[in-house]
Amino acid sequence: MTGTREQALVYAANNRNRFLDELREFLEIPSISIDPAFQQDVARAALWTAGKLKEIGATEVKVNETGMHPIVFGEVEAMGSSGAAADSPTVLIYGHYDVQRPDPVEEWLTGPFDPVIKGDELYCRGSVDNKGPIVAAIAAVKSLVEAGSLPVNVKFMIEGEEEVGSPSLSAFLTDNSEMLSADISLNGDAGMAAIDMPTITYTMRGSTRARLVVKGPAVDLHSGLFGGLVHNPIQVLAELIAGMHAADGNITLPGFYDDVQPLDDEERARLSKIPRDETVCRDLSGVPELWGVSEFTPVERTGARPALDILMIQGGADKSAIPSTAQAIVSMRLVPDQTPQTAYAQLLAYIESNAPSTVTWELEYLDGSGTVWTDTNSRWIVAMSNALEDSWGKKPVYDRSGGSIPAVSMMRSLLGIDSVLIGVFRPGDNLHAPNEKLHLPSWERTIDTIIRFLDNLGQQE
Amino acid sequence: MTGTREQALVYAANNRNRFLDELREFLEIPSISIDPAFQQDVARAALWTAGKLKEIGATEVKVNETGMHPIVFGEVEAMGSSGAAADSPTVLIYGHYDVQRPDPVEEWLTGPFDPVIKGDELYCRGSVDNKGPIVAAIAAVKSLVEAGSLPVNVKFMIEGEEEVGSPSLSAFLTDNSEMLSADISLNGDAGMAAIDMPTITYTMRGSTRARLVVKGPAVDLHSGLFGGLVHNPIQVLAELIAGMHAADGNITLPGFYDDVQPLDDEERARLSKIPRDETVCRDLSGVPELWGVSEFTPVERTGARPALDILMIQGGADKSAIPSTAQAIVSMRLVPDQTPQTAYAQLLAYIESNAPSTVTWELEYLDGSGTVWTDTNSRWIVAMSNALEDSWGKKPVYDRSGGSIPAVSMMRSLLGIDSVLIGVFRPGDNLHAPNEKLHLPSWERTIDTIIRFLDNLGQQE
Repeated sequence: MTGTREQALVYAANNRNRFLDELREFLEIPSISIDPAFQQDVARAALWTAGKLKEIGATEVKVNETGMHPIVFGEVEAMGSSGAAADSPTVLIYGHYDVQRPDPVEEWLTGPFDPVIKGDELYCRGSVDNKGPIVAAIAAVKSLVEAGSLPVNVKFMIEGEEEVGSPSLSAFLTDNSEMLSADISLNGDAGMAAIDMPTITYTMRGSTRARLVVKGPAVDLHSGLFGGLVHNPIQVLAELIAGMHAADGNITLPGFYDDVQPLDDEERARLSKIPRDETVCRDLSGVPELWGVSEFTPVERTGARPALDILMIQGGADKSAIPSTAQAIVSMRLVPDQTPQTAYAQLLAYIESNAPSTVTWELEYLDGSGTVWTDTNSRWIVAMSNALEDSWGKKPVYDRSGGSIPAVSMMRSLLGIDSVLIGVFRPGDNLHAPNEKLHLPSWERTIDTIIRFLDNLGQQE
Repeated sequence: MTGTREQALVYAANNRNRFLDELREFLEIPSISIDPAFQQDVARAALWTAGKLKEIGATEVKVNETGMHPIVFGEVEAMGSSGAAADSPTVLIYGHYDVQRPDPVEEWLTGPFDPVIKGDELYCRGSVDNKGPIVAAIAAVKSLVEAGSLPVNVKFMIEGEEEVGSPSLSAFLTDNSEMLSADISLNGDAGMAAIDMPTITYTMRGSTRARLVVKGPAVDLHSGLFGGLVHNPIQVLAELIAGMHAADGNITLPGFYDDVQPLDDEERARLSKIPRDETVCRDLSGVPELWGVSEFTPVERTGARPALDILMIQGGADKSAIPSTAQAIVSMRLVPDQTPQTAYAQLLAYIESNAPSTVTWELEYLDGSGTVWTDTNSRWIVAMSNALEDSWGKKPVYDRSGGSIPAVSMMRSLLGIDSVLIGVFRPGDNLHAPNEKLHLPSWERTIDTIIRFLDNLGQQE
């Protein structure tokens, strides 16, 4: 087995430029899932993904239409010395070919969809989130196939709606549970705790988003003739938003912390090995001073505690009027055992209690995804831990991510499939921000890591 | 004299359709001063105004370029039986040919620059604010000229920056003080206290506007990876805005009420005749409930008390990120003896005291205009009172306007010229809002009123 694994690693090393060229081609497609103007590009990214799966010999390749953007599926059966496919475990590799908007475009130093390499970094929207990891996984499977030994069955499920909350995914999972049956999912959409620090992510926050619209006067009113007499919807919205946090940074929604699992000393000790301390986080974010509940460390605050953020606020114009409406998008990041439904209900209860009778309002539920917690002692995590140690020459750390991947919680709840979460992005790689970048040496190690992970699973049989 | 005045009134009555056609032509020019995309249209509106002044026989007509939009000047000397021009008083008629944005455009029931008459109302942006009153004044002077007796010297100064705070006007007044010398200014940019209620406005609020920008992270940050750790600039902005008012509606800026003149019983009695009560104001604004400092009536709150409003707020986008910045435009309406400079300094002091160290911020002074207070016993107001009574068949009421006209305070402070403030717009005419409209019978009476006012001034000599 080891000989064959080495052949796969050699193949990967010899073909890195080819894999990189493929990634660049993928990155040039502006597959912005939230913007209907880019629908054709999103569709093109799905077709590109399906084409790549066919190239590596996948069967059953299909671009499955949904109500919004297609989900690409394909599978590669186990082959070689490790035994018949039916006896081998099946790994469902998840990824998403869609990307966030590049806004604000003017802050990009290079074109957001023009992949440019500077030193070890490849700059482009989608480079780490999540096209780089997708191409790495395809390259790893390709390398094992070329080496003549793929000891596990591999299925790919690459969606196009992750950046908009995966609204079509749950129905797809339910309708295709047999096709998607697997023993474990491999997910490369998490991150690394720091540069040069291999990482397994064992929890992810859930999330939920809602749009709050405050409606005041029937039409915009002259701010001189009505100022002092009408409750300005922007002011009401500001008052409601300001009241969502206490002065110490805690969230004031009624009952919000009731279901939050406390951190025990053992876990705090484990998380203390993650080097995202105050200084690192301040430098990464560029703020003059960090904020939040001071009794928790930065890693705990983002990984183990919930958060509430306003993603967007908008009201009025550069004219002398009290606007008739103002709106905001409220986002909450959740931790076990919070749920999106409960958090939304708590937000609703807060607004019902605090909105003044001088306005009317609407709160629209936009989307939500559950929290994720994985068992770090499972065979899957052990196989990944060994693969990371071999590829990086050091043991991985175990991190809690502040991010959310709806697919991970849906696969758990609907299909009973857990996920092994790794990733390439490091703090400072500008996820969802201008100048997103991919560290190419880390990306190459990720290809090797996936080769070793799949091979390790075959050896466990 | 009376015979000649009657001839002018008859001329005006016989030519109303012609004046209305001219107004419609004027209204079709989208002279939106705040939007550079409309600069050519604003220039066209200036040329149109100058052309009209030439048509009624004005001399010295000039389109005076400024740093932004031109100021149109022209004069018509006294003529007829009332004596030599040099002995006659000079009236400086003020107006502005620029208009507010039509936004939100989708709420207009007709095209915002497509004048449409429904019943007695003419719908169009600029119809009451301020193109209707400009055409009314030109029509009145034209009618007196055609009748062969204009007993006063008339000067016109029609600017194109009123809706952006008249930034070029003070330099123009200073540089052209001799050309603009006059005994009184007639300003048709105020309003009527109610439908069918002739009104003289004796005070106007001042105003000042400032842009507040809150800057947090260097770039937009992933809201999962940083949520709970970074003070969201939208939240900071909301907290600052929420803190600008106390729960009772009073403004919390330090020292804000120090220079506010108290209302005495006599004035409160006079203002109680204005029928803009709670019910009228709620119906006009379409809010479920009014707001503000409850110890003052609606008329007092908008006319005799200051106000603070957020005209615009903007931050973030429909993506999962903590934005790097958020901004708002803060507007304050001021009453005697407040000044724009002091109010801006109080806003600055408030932000200095309350902005957290987790962000940086900038406060930019945008513009300001002083408060206006006129003597209701002056010969000018008496002449207008009589003109209104003759035209409407009832005595006028005396109102305090919540609005601001920078030109009025500048003419007072820089040229020593007081203003007589009348207008056509009634509550509900959608100033600065979609579906702005002009009540045509009131507009026609305004032509007659101006004829009588100018004639009355000649008789006083």
